[in-house]
Amino acid sequence: MRAEFINPFLASLINVLNTMASMPMTPQKPRLKKDEIARGDVSGLIGMIGPKTKGSMSITFEQDLALEIMQRMLGERPAGINEDVTDMVGEITNMVTGGAKRALAENGYDFDMATPAVVSGKGHTITHKCDNAIILMPFDSDYGKAYIEICFD
Amino acid sequence: MRAEFINPFLASLINVLNTMASMPMTPQKPRLKKDEIARGDVSGLIGMIGPKTKGSMSITFEQDLALEIMQRMLGERPAGINEDVTDMVGEITNMVTGGAKRALAENGYDFDMATPAVVSGKGHTITHKCDNAIILMPFDSDYGKAYIEICFD
Repeated sequence: MRAEFINPFLASLINVLNTMASMPMTPQKPRLKKDEIARGDVSGLIGMIGPKTKGSMSITFEQDLALEIMQRMLGERPAGINEDVTDMVGEITNMVTGGAKRALAENGYDFDMATPAVVSGKGHTITHKCDNAIILMPFDSDYGKAYIEICFD
Repeated sequence: MRAEFINPFLASLINVLNTMASMPMTPQKPRLKKDEIARGDVSGLIGMIGPKTKGSMSITFEQDLALEIMQRMLGERPAGINEDVTDMVGEITNMVTGGAKRALAENGYDFDMATPAVVSGKGHTITHKCDNAIILMPFDSDYGKAYIEICFD
């Protein structure tokens, strides 16, 4: 996968969480996902299709981080992952992908976004099935970890 | 969501599992997903984009059913959900969506498919985030349950 596909997603997540939730996220070095497994408790997933490529992206959050973002964005903190949290994760997924889409379009890479789906379940993992390498971008925060994974054919 | 979007997915899942794994699946009545929650252990998810619509689909399997399909399709039965199983679920997701895509194209509904992603995690749930109702299609088998969920804007 082209390296210039990576930074727009990384920058978009940092920007969205800073702007919407005043939540600073520290990116670790993006890497190829091989044996490494990103586990989390709630994830947004979205499909992308362009004239020359197609792929999928996920954003996975640990529960404490998702609940803290909820508190900061909406001023409420449910006891666990409920429909309000999955709605928020779906929105974040749309916003992060939309931000990356705009940045990539400026560089001549166009794609359309499908609608997102949100997975909830303690310690689940996601495997993107495409013909290229999966890129894993880990993020740290004071409240837990988040991961973006992307894969494009 | 238009009712004619439902049957192509339902028929395609039954056809794919019958053909590829000699696994008969008994469909229950499709319904709107409201409070009902489809829980499973491994799911394939895919995004779809057409000129007039976009959406997402998931197929969720209970673990025992996924492992039995694995045994029947590939002659091996891992102890749990491993990469071979997620590869198979990704392939089934592609085949079921491809079958539905062909049937829908004949009726004038065109869409392109993104690449699939596979979720694994005991008892996870999936929530499709689109502007329309989510349709839930439950299936029974001798080895466990499967569910299709679809949502189109």
